[in-house]
Amino acid sequence: MPEKCILVTGGAGYVGSHSVIELIAAEYSVVVLDNLVNASMESIRRVEEIVGKKIQTYNVDLLDKKAVEEVFGKHKFSAVIHFAGLKAVGESCDLPLLYYKTNVGGTVNLLEVMKENGVNNLVFSSSATVYGTPQYLPLDEKHPIGGCTNPYGKTKYFIEEILRDLSNAEKQWNIVILRYFNPVGAHKSGKIGEDPQGPPNNLMPFVAQVAVGRRSELKVYGSDYDTPDGTGVRDYIHVVDLAQGHVAAIKKVEEGCGSKTYNLGTGHGYSVLDMVKAFEKASGKSIPYSKVERRLGDIASCYADAALAKTELPWTAQKNLDEMCEDLWRWQSTNPNGFRSADGK
Amino acid sequence: MPEKCILVTGGAGYVGSHSVIELIAAEYSVVVLDNLVNASMESIRRVEEIVGKKIQTYNVDLLDKKAVEEVFGKHKFSAVIHFAGLKAVGESCDLPLLYYKTNVGGTVNLLEVMKENGVNNLVFSSSATVYGTPQYLPLDEKHPIGGCTNPYGKTKYFIEEILRDLSNAEKQWNIVILRYFNPVGAHKSGKIGEDPQGPPNNLMPFVAQVAVGRRSELKVYGSDYDTPDGTGVRDYIHVVDLAQGHVAAIKKVEEGCGSKTYNLGTGHGYSVLDMVKAFEKASGKSIPYSKVERRLGDIASCYADAALAKTELPWTAQKNLDEMCEDLWRWQSTNPNGFRSADGK
Repeated sequence: MPEKCILVTGGAGYVGSHSVIELIAAEYSVVVLDNLVNASMESIRRVEEIVGKKIQTYNVDLLDKKAVEEVFGKHKFSAVIHFAGLKAVGESCDLPLLYYKTNVGGTVNLLEVMKENGVNNLVFSSSATVYGTPQYLPLDEKHPIGGCTNPYGKTKYFIEEILRDLSNAEKQWNIVILRYFNPVGAHKSGKIGEDPQGPPNNLMPFVAQVAVGRRSELKVYGSDYDTPDGTGVRDYIHVVDLAQGHVAAIKKVEEGCGSKTYNLGTGHGYSVLDMVKAFEKASGKSIPYSKVERRLGDIASCYADAALAKTELPWTAQKNLDEMCEDLWRWQSTNPNGFRSADGK
Repeated sequence: MPEKCILVTGGAGYVGSHSVIELIAAEYSVVVLDNLVNASMESIRRVEEIVGKKIQTYNVDLLDKKAVEEVFGKHKFSAVIHFAGLKAVGESCDLPLLYYKTNVGGTVNLLEVMKENGVNNLVFSSSATVYGTPQYLPLDEKHPIGGCTNPYGKTKYFIEEILRDLSNAEKQWNIVILRYFNPVGAHKSGKIGEDPQGPPNNLMPFVAQVAVGRRSELKVYGSDYDTPDGTGVRDYIHVVDLAQGHVAAIKKVEEGCGSKTYNLGTGHGYSVLDMVKAFEKASGKSIPYSKVERRLGDIASCYADAALAKTELPWTAQKNLDEMCEDLWRWQSTNPNGFRSADGK
């Protein structure tokens, strides 16, 4: 039987590129579609080194529906994993129309082209941000959603709703929505990892840039939260675990699962200071930090109830905090400027 | 001073066409943009008869951004009233992608073109459906929103959120969101009115079609609700009152109001049987009906707290139930097949 071919939108990005590797390890054939607005071809080149084969990659924007149709005309996809989208919370507050157009409009185009081509299996990159401020912890999939206050989070929520409405209307769809907690770490080769453009919005890329000397110190936003050490608690998950969750989700849609939603987290919460300490241990570097005011919109604690994914996908995170930090440090220390160090940009 | 020119998207539709008349009465100049998917040029021709002047009308779809840009290139608009959109609840459940694309995608295109042209004054057609199942009555503007379960209602909610995010990001915008309750009635000339394609989804057009002989009897969905007579209670508002609310909203955006949201309702709830009785009186026809099962998704009662619009716009509904029914009957009895009777289609 020929390999099943998966279209990965946003496959040059952080979670996308790691997922391409795991899909190939699971003997899928992969085609990447990415507009490279927030990612680099260098990440695909590195993935090719890791997997030892070429990855067919299209520099295509989902808003260019004709171009997306051409990609579907050239391949017979058994499923799509849809990572593509803008993801900076702060930027989304400044440029809401761009976020709604790109994320929601891009997804609607993709769904239309999938439908035209009889491709009805989809895995979608959502986020725990759809839960808004937790009403209880750990967050299970039944927790109310839609409480997010920034446009980025709302695009994820809107797309989830569109996907559920689509499944209700057209029973041929199999859609797994994955709600990520906080992806960190990198492939163990150190060749690929997270490569934020501009100052990182997330804790661990910032910590890693301090360790490697690109930033002078870490600002810890809020130290008076109702948490063990006063700093915010999050559910950090190794990106390779997350990537393997996507392979499990692809197998789920292949079974004809209808519409399903799963948290992808470890179920454990670590504070900012826990993470700093673990990273210092992994890197052997000291991370200077100062405690500053809380950041608007941040919550005290957020972690997953990871039971449903364990039972139904089945999938569970395997890698611990030390491995997250070691792998992040390997990537950051050998690529201090991310993918830019390779091509001199 | 030359007349201010208002772009009315969906201006050939039911509320749109009545609003065009009131805008012209208030000495605005009006340009209509309508894709005529759910409306007819005959309604514009009738409006022209009523107001005694030509209405510049473009047969343009908001999804065709280039065509929208061309319209903006030909006129200098001081504000836009955005009615255009699909609005059938049942159809939206069957064709969710079409609804999200048309309503949300069309609105994002319109906003982008407005921005490109420095037009920052907008009045948007929203709906009381954004409140979902009422947690209390009457519904004021602070009632939680987002609880609607059908894609049509969600498109209204999503667009409201996009508009609020846009106002937060860009302070030059003045946006009034109008949440309609249940528009009924017609212009007193009898020349224009609601002209649903296919079986009407709403009560009063159905009642009127029974009276005129196009339908044999009314089905009353649910007679065991917790209401005075067991049938559903709604806040019916005369479409000419509603249209005048749009003129008030245009004056509000011209003042530089920022982002505002108002209910447009009367504040009074009438049951299905109240409405049938009032229509029988106005038309002199008997309306046979049978009581059947509740319809999925329908709620017992829904009516507005209309105080905020009264204080701030200021605007208040003037026309009573008898006038709603008399005007509806004049339109329906002289145009038994709606606008189709005129051109033989």
